[in-house]
Amino acid sequence: MSLHVYNSLSRQKELFVPLNEGRVGLYVCGPTVYGESHIGHAKSYVSFDVLVRYLRYLGYRVRYVQNITDVGHLTDDADAGEDKVLQQAARERLEPMELTEKYTRSYFEDMDALRVLRPDISPRASGHIPEQIELVKKLLGRGHAYEVNGAVYFSIETFPEYGQLSGRRVEELLEAVRITPDPNKRHPADFALWKRAEEDHILRWNSPWGWGYPGWHLECSAMSMRYLGDTADIHGGGLENQFPHHESEIAQSEAATGKPFVRYWMHNNMVTVDGIKMGKSLGNFITLKQAFSGEHPLLSQAYSPLTLRFFILSSHYRSPLDFSDQALLAADRGLGRLHDAVRRVRERLPSSEAGPLDPRVEQTLAAQQTRLLEALDDDLNTPIAISVLFDVARESNSRLENGEIKRETLEAYDRFYRQLGDRVLGLIPDELSGEILAGLTESLLEILIDLRAEFRSHKQWEQADALRERLAEAGITLEDGDEGTRWRIER
Amino acid sequence: MSLHVYNSLSRQKELFVPLNEGRVGLYVCGPTVYGESHIGHAKSYVSFDVLVRYLRYLGYRVRYVQNITDVGHLTDDADAGEDKVLQQAARERLEPMELTEKYTRSYFEDMDALRVLRPDISPRASGHIPEQIELVKKLLGRGHAYEVNGAVYFSIETFPEYGQLSGRRVEELLEAVRITPDPNKRHPADFALWKRAEEDHILRWNSPWGWGYPGWHLECSAMSMRYLGDTADIHGGGLENQFPHHESEIAQSEAATGKPFVRYWMHNNMVTVDGIKMGKSLGNFITLKQAFSGEHPLLSQAYSPLTLRFFILSSHYRSPLDFSDQALLAADRGLGRLHDAVRRVRERLPSSEAGPLDPRVEQTLAAQQTRLLEALDDDLNTPIAISVLFDVARESNSRLENGEIKRETLEAYDRFYRQLGDRVLGLIPDELSGEILAGLTESLLEILIDLRAEFRSHKQWEQADALRERLAEAGITLEDGDEGTRWRIER
Repeated sequence: MSLHVYNSLSRQKELFVPLNEGRVGLYVCGPTVYGESHIGHAKSYVSFDVLVRYLRYLGYRVRYVQNITDVGHLTDDADAGEDKVLQQAARERLEPMELTEKYTRSYFEDMDALRVLRPDISPRASGHIPEQIELVKKLLGRGHAYEVNGAVYFSIETFPEYGQLSGRRVEELLEAVRITPDPNKRHPADFALWKRAEEDHILRWNSPWGWGYPGWHLECSAMSMRYLGDTADIHGGGLENQFPHHESEIAQSEAATGKPFVRYWMHNNMVTVDGIKMGKSLGNFITLKQAFSGEHPLLSQAYSPLTLRFFILSSHYRSPLDFSDQALLAADRGLGRLHDAVRRVRERLPSSEAGPLDPRVEQTLAAQQTRLLEALDDDLNTPIAISVLFDVARESNSRLENGEIKRETLEAYDRFYRQLGDRVLGLIPDELSGEILAGLTESLLEILIDLRAEFRSHKQWEQADALRERLAEAGITLEDGDEGTRWRIER
Repeated sequence: MSLHVYNSLSRQKELFVPLNEGRVGLYVCGPTVYGESHIGHAKSYVSFDVLVRYLRYLGYRVRYVQNITDVGHLTDDADAGEDKVLQQAARERLEPMELTEKYTRSYFEDMDALRVLRPDISPRASGHIPEQIELVKKLLGRGHAYEVNGAVYFSIETFPEYGQLSGRRVEELLEAVRITPDPNKRHPADFALWKRAEEDHILRWNSPWGWGYPGWHLECSAMSMRYLGDTADIHGGGLENQFPHHESEIAQSEAATGKPFVRYWMHNNMVTVDGIKMGKSLGNFITLKQAFSGEHPLLSQAYSPLTLRFFILSSHYRSPLDFSDQALLAADRGLGRLHDAVRRVRERLPSSEAGPLDPRVEQTLAAQQTRLLEALDDDLNTPIAISVLFDVARESNSRLENGEIKRETLEAYDRFYRQLGDRVLGLIPDELSGEILAGLTESLLEILIDLRAEFRSHKQWEQADALRERLAEAGITLEDGDEGTRWRIER
């Protein structure tokens, strides 16, 4: 089997064939950086991260472009309302670019924590104004756009394919979204390529049509074509961006070049919280930093970024994901079991007896690898891929319990976890080192506390007290209570 | 006393007075991101980091802008040669913007490691082409520039103050640097504001003068004025940028606005390696990652980023800094002594007896604080500031050795280290936590090994063996040898 992906454009799974052999040009719609990233962002970027990792695993040279929207995204997601960045910058009393730096940095912090690989190019919308202006000029020249009073609109009547991605007629589309009537538009579904900005607008640039700023959809067309050429292999994003954002991207790009803009459109589904769509006004809006720290009324504890990643990949990217404290707790336990199995293999390795790979294990691992890769080949079915990891974990656990395993067999398990569990799925860090060190301290303390208990049970008070004192010197306080002795690090 | 800084423009130390009370607009010339950052970068950005930290400590609201040069910086630092980014991108076979992402990321990794605070805005030259074009239009309109064949040059004869920063006549300046004769220039010292680019040039933009790209000096003027207004309080950079870069920045900015571009120009001196100027062809070029890993023929060991920071701040920013393995070794030991002193205070704190601040200590610390602040007020004299830290360290050490110190006295020492050693100088992390944890494991193992020795000396072989076995279970192997018992972590 080979990689097949669901192409939103054709509404079916298709064999993935890149435009240029061995190379993949991938564009994923990035965040609008006016606030902290939330669990919806995590679902999208973790999903496409597995796509990138898997394509690279398959040997493709991937150029991954993911934009940063720092201008032009208006509060109603279409052509009306205020610029989201300007609105928030006024609230936080920051220069708009100070605000977008702050949240861009925070976004990448969160993504790094989720083990999402950085894109190769993270172009900013504000950094590509000339490219956007050129595109508007081209569309005007080809009769696909018109200027009214310092603004430029795309004329959807000149592009009969409009609606092909969302699969609906324009009339339906108009009903589906709130579009503010605009007397400047020839057709109500026309969208702004360039908007006029008054003197007091602080994010504006000079253009052949006067001072203004680009429409939101324009940046992705301009930046995708700049870095990936007129036709990109894959364009990804959230389902909620299919219309009007992606539909408009197609129209303005293809009208300008006469070539297909994207070969495979991939859309991830959305996140709900306890079954309800997330919304700032609903109190169920959970940022990633809140999830990582547990500081949110809906969360009973902190969840590690890796738990969140595991939780996201436990459902398919095209399925909606319902986020709840209980589901996270379960994911936390599940990932813990997986990591335990890996740790056991790695702990046994150094002291294991040299010896060849057990042929039965070799056979099972080959079969499991095939299952895992077939799952990913089938439109990135990560839930099945993860279930394979668990099958292997159960097996390595039971072999470890039932006696001696030779070095090369342990190494084969370890390799499986590294290559597929980590390189492809990003779920098993090479070193679970922080944990190992913390675990070591804990083990040593346990031994010491047991020794002290023994001294006391033999009424060797002097030794028991000396031990307690030496621990105090090392900065550790012991507290004897009803449930045994507890310890506390005093710094 | 109040903050005084050496202003390169007036060639003397001046009282620092910002344009707007309580606020400081600071611009520092950032890196050209076509390779790994080296120890010269560290000197510049660590120096200005202390400026930012100190200004904030003094209560100023600082807006810190530091650009990223990703286009227009030519190999000869003036108007000739190839674009450094394009040249390296071709070598690494990367899209230029892929290359600049890679090295921008690497740069910030290094700076984070050095505990250099991130700038508030990190504008990219390629992201501010429209601003640069507007500036060129303004200069053309005011008669300070002329167009020749798709390129635009600044006419230094229209700006008699040219040379004021470097303090030399134009003729001298021309002798001092290599300037390739250019038949398009009216005067040999004229510099390019906009350069024409042929079809095959892959970093180019459309402009009123045709397709091209900005001259290197232009970006800093455009971005400084965009984010800090026509007049910035402070502009910093390396001494080697004084001419032609900063001199040209002044000319093009002030000619365009008629206002002073910068109130205080601050320049850090350069780094030599074993007394010789650093150069890629000389084999003495040391990147920060090489210094941190020790992987360089000139280095005998890895040096922590904090050791490097300490080393840099041990000399004045306006003095040249000679980098050598021996000097680094000494810095490493020095910083270790300082950290030891801090650690001793922090270790004693939890078990200390409650009690008031010793009035003699209060008095000394106040005097030391005054000394330290006066040193920084005197054009950021960090070597003296550091010597004050050592005086306090000696004192806290000797008080700890000579008996009981009450809680509040220890807290006063700790506060001194935190506020001045860390918040201002960035040399003493709040938690020396990695070390503490590693130290803890070591302490606990020592206790356990001593206990086992005791068991053995009392011929309690069973207990001794049980202890050894439990350690083995925790992954620790003990080895008895001539010099006592050693331990090894088995993973």
